[in-house]
Amino acid sequence: MNGLYDLGECSLEQVHALVARARELREGAATRRFDGKALGLLFFNPSLRTQASFQRAAGKLGLALVQLQGGAGGVWGIEFEDGAVMDGANAEHVREAAPVLGRFVDVLAIRAFAGMKSLASDLRDPLMNGFRRHAGVPVVNMESALWHPCQALADWATLEQHAIAPRAKFVLTWAWHPKPLPHAVPNSTLTMAAQRGMDVWLLRPRGYDLHASVIEQARTLAQRSGGSLTITDDREAALRGASAVYAKSWGSHECWGDLEAEIKLRAPLREWCVSADWMRKTERARFMHCLPVRRNVVVRDEVLDGPWSIVIDQAENRLHAQTALLESTFAALERSPRQPSNARPILETLP
Amino acid sequence: MNGLYDLGECSLEQVHALVARARELREGAATRRFDGKALGLLFFNPSLRTQASFQRAAGKLGLALVQLQGGAGGVWGIEFEDGAVMDGANAEHVREAAPVLGRFVDVLAIRAFAGMKSLASDLRDPLMNGFRRHAGVPVVNMESALWHPCQALADWATLEQHAIAPRAKFVLTWAWHPKPLPHAVPNSTLTMAAQRGMDVWLLRPRGYDLHASVIEQARTLAQRSGGSLTITDDREAALRGASAVYAKSWGSHECWGDLEAEIKLRAPLREWCVSADWMRKTERARFMHCLPVRRNVVVRDEVLDGPWSIVIDQAENRLHAQTALLESTFAALERSPRQPSNARPILETLP
Amino acid sequence: MNGLYDLGECSLEQVHALVARARELREGAATRRFDGKALGLLFFNPSLRTQASFQRAAGKLGLALVQLQGGAGGVWGIEFEDGAVMDGANAEHVREAAPVLGRFVDVLAIRAFAGMKSLASDLRDPLMNGFRRHAGVPVVNMESALWHPCQALADWATLEQHAIAPRAKFVLTWAWHPKPLPHAVPNSTLTMAAQRGMDVWLLRPRGYDLHASVIEQARTLAQRSGGSLTITDDREAALRGASAVYAKSWGSHECWGDLEAEIKLRAPLREWCVSADWMRKTERARFMHCLPVRRNVVVRDEVLDGPWSIVIDQAENRLHAQTALLESTFAALERSPRQPSNARPILETLP
Repeated sequence: MNGLYDLGECSLEQVHALVARARELREGAATRRFDGKALGLLFFNPSLRTQASFQRAAGKLGLALVQLQGGAGGVWGIEFEDGAVMDGANAEHVREAAPVLGRFVDVLAIRAFAGMKSLASDLRDPLMNGFRRHAGVPVVNMESALWHPCQALADWATLEQHAIAPRAKFVLTWAWHPKPLPHAVPNSTLTMAAQRGMDVWLLRPRGYDLHASVIEQARTLAQRSGGSLTITDDREAALRGASAVYAKSWGSHECWGDLEAEIKLRAPLREWCVSADWMRKTERARFMHCLPVRRNVVVRDEVLDGPWSIVIDQAENRLHAQTALLESTFAALERSPRQPSNARPILETLP
Repeated sequence: MNGLYDLGECSLEQVHALVARARELREGAATRRFDGKALGLLFFNPSLRTQASFQRAAGKLGLALVQLQGGAGGVWGIEFEDGAVMDGANAEHVREAAPVLGRFVDVLAIRAFAGMKSLASDLRDPLMNGFRRHAGVPVVNMESALWHPCQALADWATLEQHAIAPRAKFVLTWAWHPKPLPHAVPNSTLTMAAQRGMDVWLLRPRGYDLHASVIEQARTLAQRSGGSLTITDDREAALRGASAVYAKSWGSHECWGDLEAEIKLRAPLREWCVSADWMRKTERARFMHCLPVRRNVVVRDEVLDGPWSIVIDQAENRLHAQTALLESTFAALERSPRQPSNARPILETLP
Repeated sequence: MNGLYDLGECSLEQVHALVARARELREGAATRRFDGKALGLLFFNPSLRTQASFQRAAGKLGLALVQLQGGAGGVWGIEFEDGAVMDGANAEHVREAAPVLGRFVDVLAIRAFAGMKSLASDLRDPLMNGFRRHAGVPVVNMESALWHPCQALADWATLEQHAIAPRAKFVLTWAWHPKPLPHAVPNSTLTMAAQRGMDVWLLRPRGYDLHASVIEQARTLAQRSGGSLTITDDREAALRGASAVYAKSWGSHECWGDLEAEIKLRAPLREWCVSADWMRKTERARFMHCLPVRRNVVVRDEVLDGPWSIVIDQAENRLHAQTALLESTFAALERSPRQPSNARPILETLP
């Protein structure tokens, strides 16, 4: 591997290899060691699982860590628009931040959520793509405006761990939440299930569609793998025969950046909260969520504390999937090492 | 050891072993190494000594670190009430946060101060107990609403280092401070001195009692060790013949959550500030404080910069005591290692 | 080396040795390892390069890290005035914070910018000097109110890397910025170029002089090395024949602490933004900046993205210069190791 941006860009062979390796690691296999190499972790948003699992993976692989936080007390505010006149809040451009970090570390992992103000901007995934374009080293997406591929990889490993068949029925359902949330997780969940060839059902109320380009990629991937994609607001039909129910809340593209409109749109949808009743309509389905999850808002205690939930296994598989991903990425670097920067030609002629 | 919550729960044998080991480490003994194992550090409150000494201890023991901060830019806000409908500020429940971290690390150390709003809630020590209940791995208390056992262990080691006799007179005195502070340190200091069998005097103004259950535990421990506990507001009597004066400020249970009442209650108490005059009334006592300490508010410069103060040694012993504690905790884990989570039985029958 | 405060205090032999070692490291030389030793990093201000490069240097040298942040969620607010009655916001005095950290780590690196409120206070460099006075271990200045010596060392290495002759013309130019910034970087840049014996030109508008004591030290250093220092506001004269143009913005001493006056003073100076026009007036000069830099405010895109810019090399050399500095500092410690604190005499007689 050479970093990871969107799981949908990976071949099935790549994903199968990573999932198989994640399983070995979960079962106690020793990791390779890359002593002397360094992994950079750069967080612009809160994180529990992602921080903890990437730090832990680095420890297992013998990697030195460079850890940076955005926000107060962390790195400088980062501008990502080309040509910007930077007389506002941001003190540094990604055109400097990215190559500088690329000189310090061998692989850079970044978390940069959607800004949730401008849909056009969020759809360009500007901060993550700025780093990918300018870092000069492999970049791992720890959740961007558009994708959360490490979560998807861990979820794939979890489906295998719990013996949910590749052709089984997989329901991704919207849930109510007090705030509109970004689309990275539902985008990557849909992609993953389609890519795996599952019978994918996207269950959401009117107004809560995912972006057309995401749906289109999922359909292509489903077709290639022999799966299918159904979009519906018919809960009974979706849950009937399901082997996995994956809950997640997300904001409406119709209200992007307009909190008041969003809150009005979702006000009647508070009963979109996964309960035991929902689960009993399925075919002994597993309950999945990326975490963090708001109890008794997105899903009821009875489900999380009941026999359906595999959310803690999903979280554990973050560690194993990411260790596999980093192991593969650093191994590839070892095969074609970077030259010291001195070896870069210095311009002979200046104007 | 299997983590540590309240020093008062430990047997004298356990404490003596840890203190003896801390002394060896202070004198330069090599630590055991636990390469491949991981320690999680989770801070919900500010810290200088605790962060630095736990990070350093991890380095000495060869432990990989997973470091997380609460608050802006850190982990998600964590709910700890069972059954909560989580439509407020907190995005994650300790019922998920704890077991997830337990899958990533071998031992989890947590700092979670009293909220200082509801006394009933603080007395349940909810965040620390939530993590202890749900983490599935040993938990080390780096200061909770009720206890600061690592400070107490370091203080015990410091008393030995400075040859303050087990039966000597130990005064824990309240001091003025602009804000009401939690009881964790005075609770653990009282517990430690009683457990060590000292002639313990608790010197505090009216309204500043420690909780009855803490006093009761201290009396039981004192009795068991041949010590005693006297509670007084008579400063002369308390200081006479003392070998150690331990200053600390704390809030009044009578005003818990009511800042205005608290400030009014303590307004006449500003002269509760340890001075050379206080120290000269003692039997060449040592001055102790857990730090951070507000100079010329809790204690005067003349004491901290004079011959009485051993506060820097107390801080140094945090490192050695905690290294001993972690060494013992990881050694115990080595004797009964965790199974990979795959070995956990998957429910055969779902409803 | 024994830490580093101001590059101007170092002998030319020391600087040459560090720069030569930085070059070896940049070209791939192996570092020495100091396993079992610890480096403390304490940041009171934002940082990208400095955090990343010190973390990476520690990894290369096998050092355990103790990492602390000032501000919310980090260490306690730190008072530095002797004799202060600490009933305000700061909970801890540097007289405790420094020696405590000195007990935990072998070398302490600190970032503490100018407060930009009181010029008299900033000129005393109070937080950095408080730590240097009280830590009991070597202190590395990661940018203080007055100096940024690690940047200067990296810049010296960069000038060598790009074959800019020791006697070449070096222009340090003020640039417009929406806010007044501290003087640490221009102070250290001027010092470094003078110390190297360059033909140094300080180009700044009226009102933006550096402090007289900094100028005086630079003149002394220039004289000793056979260089010179010219201060001017004549841009044409300054740029003519220049081999390096180093841009930086800083605040006016005339308006220190008075934001409104400062903004008025600099309002007419917005065209102090380095453009291709500026660079074409030089003798094929390199463009330098410490980063972060505000694009199209301090310098135009055309310069940063053009053939002149060596700012990314400057940033990379931070890593190599600091690795050389730490290597030298830890090697010196190895030759005269600290005694365990137990070996420190305990006062025999207390009053």
